[in-house]
Amino acid sequence: MLRKILIANRGEIAVRIIRACAEMGIRSVAIYSEVDRFALHVKKADESYCIGTEPLAGYLNVYALVDLAAATGCDAVHPGYGFLSENAQFARACKERGLIFIGPDADVIQRMGDKTEARNAMISAGIPVTPGTANLANVEEALTAAEKIGYPIMLKATSGGGGRGIRRCDNADDLRRNYDRVISEATKAFGSADVFLEKCVVNPRHIEVQVLADHHGNTIHLYERDCSIQRRNQKLIEIAPSPQLDEAQRQYIGGLAVLAAKAVGYTNAGTVEFLLDSNDRFYFMEMNTRVQVEHTITETITGVDIVEEQIRVAAGLALRCKQEDISRRGYAIQFRINAEDPQNGFLPSFGHISRYYAPGGPGVRTDTAIYTGYDIPPYYDSMLAKLIVSAITWEDTIKRGERALRDMGLFGIKTTIPYYLEILRHPEFRLGRFNTGFIEQNPALVNYSNKPRPEVLASVIAAVMAAHTGL
Amino acid sequence: MLRKILIANRGEIAVRIIRACAEMGIRSVAIYSEVDRFALHVKKADESYCIGTEPLAGYLNVYALVDLAAATGCDAVHPGYGFLSENAQFARACKERGLIFIGPDADVIQRMGDKTEARNAMISAGIPVTPGTANLANVEEALTAAEKIGYPIMLKATSGGGGRGIRRCDNADDLRRNYDRVISEATKAFGSADVFLEKCVVNPRHIEVQVLADHHGNTIHLYERDCSIQRRNQKLIEIAPSPQLDEAQRQYIGGLAVLAAKAVGYTNAGTVEFLLDSNDRFYFMEMNTRVQVEHTITETITGVDIVEEQIRVAAGLALRCKQEDISRRGYAIQFRINAEDPQNGFLPSFGHISRYYAPGGPGVRTDTAIYTGYDIPPYYDSMLAKLIVSAITWEDTIKRGERALRDMGLFGIKTTIPYYLEILRHPEFRLGRFNTGFIEQNPALVNYSNKPRPEVLASVIAAVMAAHTGL
Repeated sequence: MLRKILIANRGEIAVRIIRACAEMGIRSVAIYSEVDRFALHVKKADESYCIGTEPLAGYLNVYALVDLAAATGCDAVHPGYGFLSENAQFARACKERGLIFIGPDADVIQRMGDKTEARNAMISAGIPVTPGTANLANVEEALTAAEKIGYPIMLKATSGGGGRGIRRCDNADDLRRNYDRVISEATKAFGSADVFLEKCVVNPRHIEVQVLADHHGNTIHLYERDCSIQRRNQKLIEIAPSPQLDEAQRQYIGGLAVLAAKAVGYTNAGTVEFLLDSNDRFYFMEMNTRVQVEHTITETITGVDIVEEQIRVAAGLALRCKQEDISRRGYAIQFRINAEDPQNGFLPSFGHISRYYAPGGPGVRTDTAIYTGYDIPPYYDSMLAKLIVSAITWEDTIKRGERALRDMGLFGIKTTIPYYLEILRHPEFRLGRFNTGFIEQNPALVNYSNKPRPEVLASVIAAVMAAHTGL
Repeated sequence: MLRKILIANRGEIAVRIIRACAEMGIRSVAIYSEVDRFALHVKKADESYCIGTEPLAGYLNVYALVDLAAATGCDAVHPGYGFLSENAQFARACKERGLIFIGPDADVIQRMGDKTEARNAMISAGIPVTPGTANLANVEEALTAAEKIGYPIMLKATSGGGGRGIRRCDNADDLRRNYDRVISEATKAFGSADVFLEKCVVNPRHIEVQVLADHHGNTIHLYERDCSIQRRNQKLIEIAPSPQLDEAQRQYIGGLAVLAAKAVGYTNAGTVEFLLDSNDRFYFMEMNTRVQVEHTITETITGVDIVEEQIRVAAGLALRCKQEDISRRGYAIQFRINAEDPQNGFLPSFGHISRYYAPGGPGVRTDTAIYTGYDIPPYYDSMLAKLIVSAITWEDTIKRGERALRDMGLFGIKTTIPYYLEILRHPEFRLGRFNTGFIEQNPALVNYSNKPRPEVLASVIAAVMAAHTGL
């Protein structure tokens, strides 16, 4: 087993990985930028090292991190999500330094990170993909291809991800206008100017399958997640399993994901994302070669600790479960509690957390790196906490979500909590019928009242009590 | 369904019930003594009423509470555990006022509360009980009976419970000395001078089965809990299912509990407690006619919300699950985090909680009524919080327990957390082999060090980083 892991990340996912290390008896090494010196992952890790005054640069400095891991005697590096998690160069640099990168092989990261290569791999494996093109040479080639596929069409950066480097074009004018813009965005964000076209599935459902694969030829899936509740391609609420699939669809898509993972020689934890169109056809969208923000809900319904399995697989151990051992119970919903003001265009609301009370009781899990008195630095993701609720039935899971969102006390900043309460009240959500257009189609969800619950009237009852207690 | 419930309790169990009400759309009414005015259950309930200046009297005032429930428009009362939860008079007073008492029928409470009546009922139903006597007339009768059964013997108050009104006698002298003492204790604590004898099973394992029964003839069990880790008859750590039973024993004891519940016409949630001797024989010990502190671990392994089922059953609804629907996954351990100093004879350590951080991450649940800044009043139970951890294997559950106990931050008072860490390290505990003698047989468990973890040396690594970041 591994002895010491450097966690090349921050925030709640760093805390999550530290917890897995603690349970496995592995020493954890945290890194932090100057502004992160009071962050929870720094307190929770066995060792912590400052990686500079720049808020972001240190977390992205491939060679400095590899050097630090080696110098501190680590035998492995866990990249979390975001930052360097899908950076093949980082995975390679770890390997060259004799460090285990906790994730798939660098070549697989690179191949799946290139959207056209990934598409081609899936086409070869017989996985359905949306009609689309290879990398485009210029806007004229794009226009011709678009006519053939038919509008609306998606213009995508080949190296894109996380909702960036992607534009919908409804006609040739749109495509012409967006072409250079996406190239410029992609060059800045991903260091690659490659773009391609894909048929736009209008308002699909976003269904993704968690897979686990070891170095001994075992590949399994842990069922699917429904991440259709998105705003501008950013997931807000995730659900496992999808209330929109029947058992036959569930088995089909699980099998497809395992096939996809095997086709590319995948190892470690990964996610195969699919679109589900209004005719109930699935299309491969992309494969995420890292642990995802929403891995928690899969852990909740299956009982499998995905981060622990990642570490075990990286250490060369076989998966502990076969496909037939994976049980599943009830539903789980994850709410991404963001420091944003939904009533003000989801403007980030960074600042001082004057009080934080974690929710508790049955079927509630929280993953967070905040605490009472914490100052949220403005340089990072606005996600403050993940609130995960579970119950046996879909209806009970929604009710538990409402309760737990109210139960969570987070003061000093604006959050998405009241907005999520509105979503939970929406009849279509309650029926489990929604697609990626849900948020856009329901702009009125931001019209909640900010008034606190009506004050309870301290009442005439005092007299009744007084008679008995002699007050 | 019920509309409004008065919760005749305080602390974490009041919060637990308020959460169930919130999820079910039922209005909750909290009560509080003057010293409890800043208690969490007061903040969480929909309405709250002060029941006087006396710390305890108000929580025990049967008629005042019934009047309050009626005056505030409640249709039901939930008694929690402790206080009036097993008081047949309270259950009857509710009924007479047209209020639903959330628990079994008053007659069943009374019958199970009388230990000799309960024994007789079990004997009639064919449930194994330890050899023993009916209520005793005097010490001479006790001495004669004890000779026949054989020492060691337990002298028990017929109305006793919660570890009080019970003494072990190893010989006739012991019995003579304790006889009047137990009678006096029982009279003070339970208002009854009745005592009886039972054969003492030396260092048994404490195995209890959770049952649920509705008013439509359905009675099921939710598997067992192992509560052998006790100190002076007070449970400290509870486990579900017992790592000491095989599947055949598990099925047998579950069936026995259902038989016992049916034999007494039991409804609502209840617990049938058994002793398991060193020859693997089970003996009925007692039936608890309330929700128990440790119901949480059963909820965790089965996914069933026991408090919600209590409320549904009380409202006249049928159980939602049949026996064959009850699934079970992994293990759950509950730690009762008490405000006590194990290194000082478990002396209560009430006071000001300067900081409280709830643990989080996978497989962790907390039920508590404390918060940063809370002053623990010295008048009540020393249990501050319940920490529940779960995982698929027994080994992983222990490791998660160690992690979560360290993850919980509770400052300002002494707690049992470091003591539990010692228990988790004990080889017999890790092997899942322990009986009710465990704590007494391992006095060295209190010899833990209070030193904080060795400070991490901020090290030479800075140089490595500086080379890359330009610091």
